[in-house]
Amino acid sequence: MKVVLKSKQIESMLNGFVATNEKVEVLPKTGIVCLKKQDAAVVPIISGGGSGHEPAHFGFVGKGMLSAAISGEIFEPPHYEDILTAIRKVDQGRGVFVIEKNFDADLAMFSKAITLARAEGRIIRYIVSHDDISVDSTNNYEVRHRGVAGTILLHKILGEAAQRGQSITEIERIAFELSTSIFTIGATKSAVTIPGQDCPVFQLPQGEISLGIGIHGESGYRQEPFVSLEYLANELINKLKIRCRWKKNDAYIVLINNLGGFSESDQFLFTNAVMNLLELEDIEVQFIKTKKLLTSLDMQGISITMCPVKHTYWLDFLKADTDAPAW
Amino acid sequence: MKVVLKSKQIESMLNGFVATNEKVEVLPKTGIVCLKKQDAAVVPIISGGGSGHEPAHFGFVGKGMLSAAISGEIFEPPHYEDILTAIRKVDQGRGVFVIEKNFDADLAMFSKAITLARAEGRIIRYIVSHDDISVDSTNNYEVRHRGVAGTILLHKILGEAAQRGQSITEIERIAFELSTSIFTIGATKSAVTIPGQDCPVFQLPQGEISLGIGIHGESGYRQEPFVSLEYLANELINKLKIRCRWKKNDAYIVLINNLGGFSESDQFLFTNAVMNLLELEDIEVQFIKTKKLLTSLDMQGISITMCPVKHTYWLDFLKADTDAPAW
Repeated sequence: MKVVLKSKQIESMLNGFVATNEKVEVLPKTGIVCLKKQDAAVVPIISGGGSGHEPAHFGFVGKGMLSAAISGEIFEPPHYEDILTAIRKVDQGRGVFVIEKNFDADLAMFSKAITLARAEGRIIRYIVSHDDISVDSTNNYEVRHRGVAGTILLHKILGEAAQRGQSITEIERIAFELSTSIFTIGATKSAVTIPGQDCPVFQLPQGEISLGIGIHGESGYRQEPFVSLEYLANELINKLKIRCRWKKNDAYIVLINNLGGFSESDQFLFTNAVMNLLELEDIEVQFIKTKKLLTSLDMQGISITMCPVKHTYWLDFLKADTDAPAW
Repeated sequence: MKVVLKSKQIESMLNGFVATNEKVEVLPKTGIVCLKKQDAAVVPIISGGGSGHEPAHFGFVGKGMLSAAISGEIFEPPHYEDILTAIRKVDQGRGVFVIEKNFDADLAMFSKAITLARAEGRIIRYIVSHDDISVDSTNNYEVRHRGVAGTILLHKILGEAAQRGQSITEIERIAFELSTSIFTIGATKSAVTIPGQDCPVFQLPQGEISLGIGIHGESGYRQEPFVSLEYLANELINKLKIRCRWKKNDAYIVLINNLGGFSESDQFLFTNAVMNLLELEDIEVQFIKTKKLLTSLDMQGISITMCPVKHTYWLDFLKADTDAPAW
């Protein structure tokens, strides 16, 4: 049954990662990274997707986050057989909770794996992450919102719920409310070249920026000259404001995600610009993290994720310790 | 006395960082990030250098690592007045230990600050990090070895020694032995463009790689077509082997440092290649970390740092918990 990854390269990458983390292992000839020791008292949460988004998702395998992550080829979802293998590996009888991102190819593979797992009598619940708000009627992605960096908030909050012994039904309930409360928008200064291809996925001249980009090199809703990080922050915060409909003194969780090749200095300059704008808006930022969480290879892009604090336990769960190295 | 940073930009970057870390603060109008709460039982360790190397050094301020970090302008060391201000801020009477990198401009500023601090009756000890082995007689840096990513091993091991209550004399003794045991070499696929300048510091055509580069865009000892990550790992490990003179079954600490714009997938592929080569050499890797530790803006480069395990407490100190976010 077990499917061998097409490329040796993905397996080599996963082996490189597990060399740096003694708490996890790669299941040979799969794209699966999982905890060496599963805790039977914890409902396992798994996630996965195409490679090229590292540290997502294997970097989030750890106590209080994921029990396993499944990597596919570059920008291709894992095969359903690999997902099924991961489900079987982590299932301890209390069910398995699956976090998937909203892309057609991902949904097809995850749905098939979930159907097969349920046919084996397993309890499987899942959530589809769909936080990207950059999609509008003028481009090809109008049908639904893509799952991007905000997915990592699901990993952390649901992972901590599981760690605290909550049931799969309770985890699903939290997931439903949380997944509809997360909003992300990003931009990039460079297009991305997929390894083995000789030109970028879309054309972006030096000095231009693309707004509302995806995580697979999809171009955004508008391309324009890059003015400054402050100007960029303003553009993206305005889009989030329209979507979130926030009011003065609202409390928010903020993630700023480096999509790969953005320098750390620009990343923190951008963070400062975002914080200044949110202060002007009288938004109370109760949690903020700025990091490479979900990348698109070496794309020089950045995204902002915002989520209203609807429950204080969301904050508690976000702030709880985890040994997942990428959090 | 206090020196205002020339550019508002550095202060904005530091403010962006401290927004994400509630345990540290920026001293206004300086390049200093320090712990809000100093522990009087701990000898404070400070470090600093030019900006453009983020997360070095402010990302390493935390319990068990640095008490303060001082940032200068991009690729320029902090002014001695800022270093002196940091020393005064953290000094609790047990002395202050300073970690500086081996560059003329850095040494001049740190030496002046240390001299002034000692004239105030303070106990100051320091170490100069000089781990770069890429320097040879054919380039401009022949006089001495630069301080690069291996500096972070000093932050961690000395920081933990301080955390465990060791005296400044004991910390200095560890520093002397450790600093001469750390060896680093790096390479890059792209040159770096300093913000505000319109062309890269050196010319590197697409598809070429520069071996033995510095962290300020200095070109390396050789430029050649990029073949593969495995080939690159082999070239750099061979250079390290010559310098380290290792024998079969020797135990080593390994850091693989992403210099900024290297993708995470390539970073872990490279890590895997390095681990395979070290296995062939019968080197026992007892600690490995792969991360952005000390960057050169968005340079698509990577470096390997190796350090023989001369004492098991070096490993214990490396593995100890810290809340410094960049470790």
